[in-house]
Amino acid sequence: MREMFHAELRQLGYQLAVLADSADDAMDQATLALLHTDRDRADGVIAGEHTIEERHHELDEHALTLLARQQPVATDLRTVVATLRMSADLRRMVALARHVAELVVLRHPEPVVPAEFRGLVERMGEVAGWLVGKARAVLRSHDAGAALALDRDDDEMDRLQESLYRELLDAGVQRDPRAVLDMALIGRYYERYADHAVSVAKRVAFIAAPVPQG
Amino acid sequence: MREMFHAELRQLGYQLAVLADSADDAMDQATLALLHTDRDRADGVIAGEHTIEERHHELDEHALTLLARQQPVATDLRTVVATLRMSADLRRMVALARHVAELVVLRHPEPVVPAEFRGLVERMGEVAGWLVGKARAVLRSHDAGAALALDRDDDEMDRLQESLYRELLDAGVQRDPRAVLDMALIGRYYERYADHAVSVAKRVAFIAAPVPQG
Repeated sequence: MREMFHAELRQLGYQLAVLADSADDAMDQATLALLHTDRDRADGVIAGEHTIEERHHELDEHALTLLARQQPVATDLRTVVATLRMSADLRRMVALARHVAELVVLRHPEPVVPAEFRGLVERMGEVAGWLVGKARAVLRSHDAGAALALDRDDDEMDRLQESLYRELLDAGVQRDPRAVLDMALIGRYYERYADHAVSVAKRVAFIAAPVPQG
Repeated sequence: MREMFHAELRQLGYQLAVLADSADDAMDQATLALLHTDRDRADGVIAGEHTIEERHHELDEHALTLLARQQPVATDLRTVVATLRMSADLRRMVALARHVAELVVLRHPEPVVPAEFRGLVERMGEVAGWLVGKARAVLRSHDAGAALALDRDDDEMDRLQESLYRELLDAGVQRDPRAVLDMALIGRYYERYADHAVSVAKRVAFIAAPVPQG
């Protein structure tokens, strides 16, 4: 019974890791669409959300079934509940990637990102990919140390957002209000995405940390 | 045993309703701080988050204890899991109110909201209060019909956000980039707050709907 439960728990972890791949791919595609004013790619991100949502629903139902059938307690119970929370984080990350893609579609054929901000946005995309990549690795390895190191990485996204907002308000430059509005939201979407990625990793750490050896 | 469980479930519902009051109060205070450039009030919202967070932690632990001890299945299990999700929604709403308050502190003594947007922001604050008020009522009454009606109310916040963004981009007006940046974020914070309020009510509806009578 317990062995079966742990096999199911591993299965849940695998489903989560696959959904982390989807969240990674969604933001990766959204960033490319944003940088290349690529409407087809943006449409793809928007259309893809539905399928990912369904997989989240399956994962959540699987977790609920496990709770009902196996009646776990202590660490096992916390692991299943953490799985539901990580599922919510990852689902939100896909929605944030969709928001980025929607902005591309809304402004098309105009680019959303002014030339002078391309470098910053590219870097935000990289940090987002890096953070979710670490979350994926942590989900697969259950390495609490790696998870805790993510907190520092999150600082980099915060710094990028601050630079972006500071440059938007640079008094020496005349800005198009549309660019300020769009970039304010873009900055916020990437920052939230990073925050959820770090949250996923921390939840793994929270589960992984107190496991006694032997 | 089951009677005790349902008493505990009612207790969870009561804790949720109290936390909905806190989320309502936090945004109410943040809106007042925003409209009156009231730094003390903004500081109060920021300082108050910690205590609310602790109450969320207590609620979540209470729900986990119920899961472990009472091992609920079917609707009872879904109710406890929905409670954890509503707790997460309400906690996020308090964080969004804190974001509004932080903007007040950041720009102080300058007002965040340009005079011409005061009416819109006031209305956003009203709709936010109205939506969380309905969520609170639904939490206390478990009335699925009222919960489903919330969906339409959410549309009003979306419309307010659209008006705000449209006016920010009005070509006939020269805008301070700082005002555009701040108002873009303010619009987003209220919209997210409304979305979470509706989500809370829908979760109640999801639990309340399939209960057979008699």
